[in-house]
Amino acid sequence: MAFPCLDAIESRSATLEARSDSSGPEPSYTTGATLKYRCREPLLLDWGGVLREFDIAYETWGSLNADRSNAILLHTGLSASSHAHSTEANPQPGWWENFIGPGRALDTEKYFVICTNVIGGCYGSTGPSSIDPADGQIYATRFPILTMEDMVRAQFRLLDSLGVDKLYASVGSSMGGMLSLASGVLFPERVGSIVSISGCARSHPYSIAIRHTQRQVLMMDPNWNRGFYYGRVPPHAGMKLAREIATVTYRSGPEWEQRFGRRRADPSKPPALCPDFLIETYLDHAGEKFCLTYDPNSLLYVSKAMDLFDLGQQNRLATAARRAEREAALRTRADDANALSPDPGSCTLTLPDRPYEEQPDVDDRAASAPTTTAADSGPPEDLVQGLAPLRNHRALVMGVASDILFPAWQQREIAEALERAGNRHVSHYELSEEHSLFGHDTFLLDVKNVGGRVKEFLG
Amino acid sequence: MAFPCLDAIESRSATLEARSDSSGPEPSYTTGATLKYRCREPLLLDWGGVLREFDIAYETWGSLNADRSNAILLHTGLSASSHAHSTEANPQPGWWENFIGPGRALDTEKYFVICTNVIGGCYGSTGPSSIDPADGQIYATRFPILTMEDMVRAQFRLLDSLGVDKLYASVGSSMGGMLSLASGVLFPERVGSIVSISGCARSHPYSIAIRHTQRQVLMMDPNWNRGFYYGRVPPHAGMKLAREIATVTYRSGPEWEQRFGRRRADPSKPPALCPDFLIETYLDHAGEKFCLTYDPNSLLYVSKAMDLFDLGQQNRLATAARRAEREAALRTRADDANALSPDPGSCTLTLPDRPYEEQPDVDDRAASAPTTTAADSGPPEDLVQGLAPLRNHRALVMGVASDILFPAWQQREIAEALERAGNRHVSHYELSEEHSLFGHDTFLLDVKNVGGRVKEFLG
Repeated sequence: MAFPCLDAIESRSATLEARSDSSGPEPSYTTGATLKYRCREPLLLDWGGVLREFDIAYETWGSLNADRSNAILLHTGLSASSHAHSTEANPQPGWWENFIGPGRALDTEKYFVICTNVIGGCYGSTGPSSIDPADGQIYATRFPILTMEDMVRAQFRLLDSLGVDKLYASVGSSMGGMLSLASGVLFPERVGSIVSISGCARSHPYSIAIRHTQRQVLMMDPNWNRGFYYGRVPPHAGMKLAREIATVTYRSGPEWEQRFGRRRADPSKPPALCPDFLIETYLDHAGEKFCLTYDPNSLLYVSKAMDLFDLGQQNRLATAARRAEREAALRTRADDANALSPDPGSCTLTLPDRPYEEQPDVDDRAASAPTTTAADSGPPEDLVQGLAPLRNHRALVMGVASDILFPAWQQREIAEALERAGNRHVSHYELSEEHSLFGHDTFLLDVKNVGGRVKEFLG
Repeated sequence: MAFPCLDAIESRSATLEARSDSSGPEPSYTTGATLKYRCREPLLLDWGGVLREFDIAYETWGSLNADRSNAILLHTGLSASSHAHSTEANPQPGWWENFIGPGRALDTEKYFVICTNVIGGCYGSTGPSSIDPADGQIYATRFPILTMEDMVRAQFRLLDSLGVDKLYASVGSSMGGMLSLASGVLFPERVGSIVSISGCARSHPYSIAIRHTQRQVLMMDPNWNRGFYYGRVPPHAGMKLAREIATVTYRSGPEWEQRFGRRRADPSKPPALCPDFLIETYLDHAGEKFCLTYDPNSLLYVSKAMDLFDLGQQNRLATAARRAEREAALRTRADDANALSPDPGSCTLTLPDRPYEEQPDVDDRAASAPTTTAADSGPPEDLVQGLAPLRNHRALVMGVASDILFPAWQQREIAEALERAGNRHVSHYELSEEHSLFGHDTFLLDVKNVGGRVKEFLG
C-alpha cells in the first residue's frame, strides 16, 4: 500500500532541512507590515513570570477623534494576527475584511479600530519565538506561562501610549470574545461597551480536552524538541495534525453533511488509509495551509492561556493574592537579577501518583443520579460575582447553536451571569441552525447576522 | 520547563526497545482464552482482496437449544474482543458483563449468546497482525482493505460451522450497531430480529473526520513505520494520542463539567504544558491504558471499514457489481496464484491535484441558503431502498441525546428509513440528557435504560 500523505510529510522535512542548512534559521512568522509598540516597563504576569520589556504589533483603521473617545479595541482568535483588514502598508485582505470599513459592522467613518497581535503570539508581538533580552537567545519554552488577563494588560499599555484613556468598545469573537470580557473586568472604567461573540467566561472541560489533544500531538512530534526547534526543521507534522483536530471543531456536522457528504476524492480508486473521503482531503488541506505559518510554541502558550481562563470570583481573588505576593517579592529583591525571571523549575507539573480511575458506582449514577447541566441551573454564583465589574456596561453577547467548541450555553451563561449581577443592558442573540450551520466559524463568515447585530449594537 | 508526559513516552520506548532486543517480538494481543474457528474456504472481500483462510475467535454463553433457534449474535465496538462476559476459561469481567447472564438483558437461560472478534481485529481473529499464509510473514499493511459487510460474511461462516441456520436476533452497539444492521441486510432470511444501539446506517462525515485524525496521529508516529513495526517498538505514542482523541468523543461535555469541571490535578503547582487539568489527566490515563493493548494496524483497518459503511442502495449495488466482476476474474484466473492477492498498487490513493478550496460565495450561503439537515428532511430514498431487506424484521433502534460521535439523529434516520421501507415493527427510543449524560459510552454503562429496553424487546 502506498502512503502519499506520509511521502508529503517526509518530503517537506527534507526541503526544510536543506533550506535551514543553506540559509540558517527559517524566516520569522509574519502576515505583513504592522505598526509596532515597544513597552520598556516590565510586565508582571499572573503566574509569576516577568517580561522585562515587550513588543505589541498592531494595526489601526479609521481616525481617533479629538477627544479620543471613539476607539474600539478588536480582539483576535487564537492564531490570528493584527491584520483584521487590509491597510495601505499591507493590502492583503484581513481576517475580518468584510466587517470593517465605512458603513460596515465596525464603521471606520465613526470609529478608530485597533487590533493587536496578543503577547504569546508570533506575528510581531513578544512570544516564545522572540529574543529574551536577558541572554539574547530565543525564549522557546523558557517563555513564562501566560493568561488572557496578561494579554489584556499588555494591550492597555499600548492604549496608554496611544493616549486612549477609555475605549468606546471592546469587541471580539472566539478567544477574542474571552479577551473582550476580560478587558472590561480588569479595566471597567476604561471600557465603554462589550461585544463578546462565540466566546466564554470560563473554559469548559470539553474545550480544554480539545486543546489538550492539539498540544499533545504537537509536543509528540520529535521535531518539536521540547520547544527548541528554532533554526532547525520545525514540528510541521505535529502542527498539521493539531490544525486538523482544531478544524474538526470549527465547523459543524450538518454543514459537512451538505458539503461533503460521503463523497470520496476519487471514487474510481480503491480506498486508502491516507486521505480518501472529501472530508479528509479538506482536513488535510487545512493542516497543510497552517503548518508553517504559525509558531508551534505560540500555539502551546496561547492555547494554555485559554484553558486557564476563568473570570469567576475565586480565580480572580487567588490570582490577585498571587500577584500581590510576587510583587512584594520583586520589590524586596529589586536589585537581584534573578528576581525578574521565574524559577526555571516552577512550571514543572508531575502527574498525580494515582491516575484517575473510573468510579465503580458509575452504573448507579447513570441510572439514578439527578443530572443538572449548566444550561438547566443557571450561572454559578462565583461567575456572577466575577462579572460584577461589568454590571453597568452595555453588552452584546452572541452565540451560534451549531458551535461545538464554544457551545451556545456558554454565551447564555455570560448573559445570565451579567443579568444576575444586575446588568440591565445585556443583548443576547443566538443564531439557530436555520441561520447558520457554520458552527464556531460563523463569526468569520456571517456578515449579515453577526456583522449586522454588531453594527446595530455599536450604533 | 519540565515535560513529564514526554519523559514517560521516552521511557516506555526505551523499555520496549530493551524488551524486544532481549526476547524477540512483543507478545500477541489478547484478552484471554477464547474458542477458535478456522475457515479454510477463501473469503472474497468487498474491495477485491481475498483471505485464503481465516480464523475467528469467539466466546459463547448459555446453550443452543434442540432446534438451534435461540442463538443471538452479539457484535462488538471497534476495539473490543469477543470477551463480552466472563467465562470458565477466562473469569475476567467482559465488556458487557452486566448485560449478559440469567435474567439479564441477554438472558442466558433463554438464549445462546455468541460474540466474535471481528476479522481485521487482533484478539484472535485474522487481521493485519496475523501471518499471511501466502508467505509466512505478518500481513501488516499488506492486509487487504475490509468492509463491515466482510466482517459479517466471516461471522456467518462461523454460524454455518455451529449449525446455526437462523439467528434469533442480531444485537450490537456502536460499530456493533452498524454490524447488526448489516447482518440483517446481507442475510435477511438468517436473522430474526435486529437490535442496533448508538450505531448508524451510513457513516457521517463528522465521524469520518474524527477517525481520520486518529489514523493520522498514529501513522505519523515514526515507530509506525508504514505498518511494519512487528517485533520492534510499536507506535505506542501514536496509539496513545489516537485513544485520547477517541475518548473526547466517547463522553459528553456536560458529564465532564459535573465530574471534572475546571479542577487542576495539583492546584498548588503552577500550570504546565503537560497534563495539568483533571480532564487532561483523565485523557492521558485513557491513552496510557490502551496504547499497548490493541494492534495499531487493526485500529487503521477497522476504523477505515467504519468510514466506508453505507447501507444505501447505490453503494450496495456498486459493491455487488464490483464483487461479481472480481469473482469472474478469479474464476478465469483460478490457477494463477496472483489472482488471490489484490494488486499491491491498487490501494494507492493520491490526493486530487487541486486541493479543496473554500467556496467564494460562502457569505451568501451563510446568509441566505435554505439549509436542510438530515434531521429535517427525513431519510434519503437511497437508504430507504438499501434497508428494504429489513422491512419485515422486528427492530429495536436506540440512541442517546448526549452522544456526539453517533448523534441521535443517525438512529432516528435508521428508524425512519425502516418505517418508510414498510416496516411496522420498529421500536425507537432516544435517551434524553436527563436519562444519560454519558454520551456514546452509555451503552457500556446504563444497565437500566439500555439493558432494560433490550430485555423487554427480546422477550
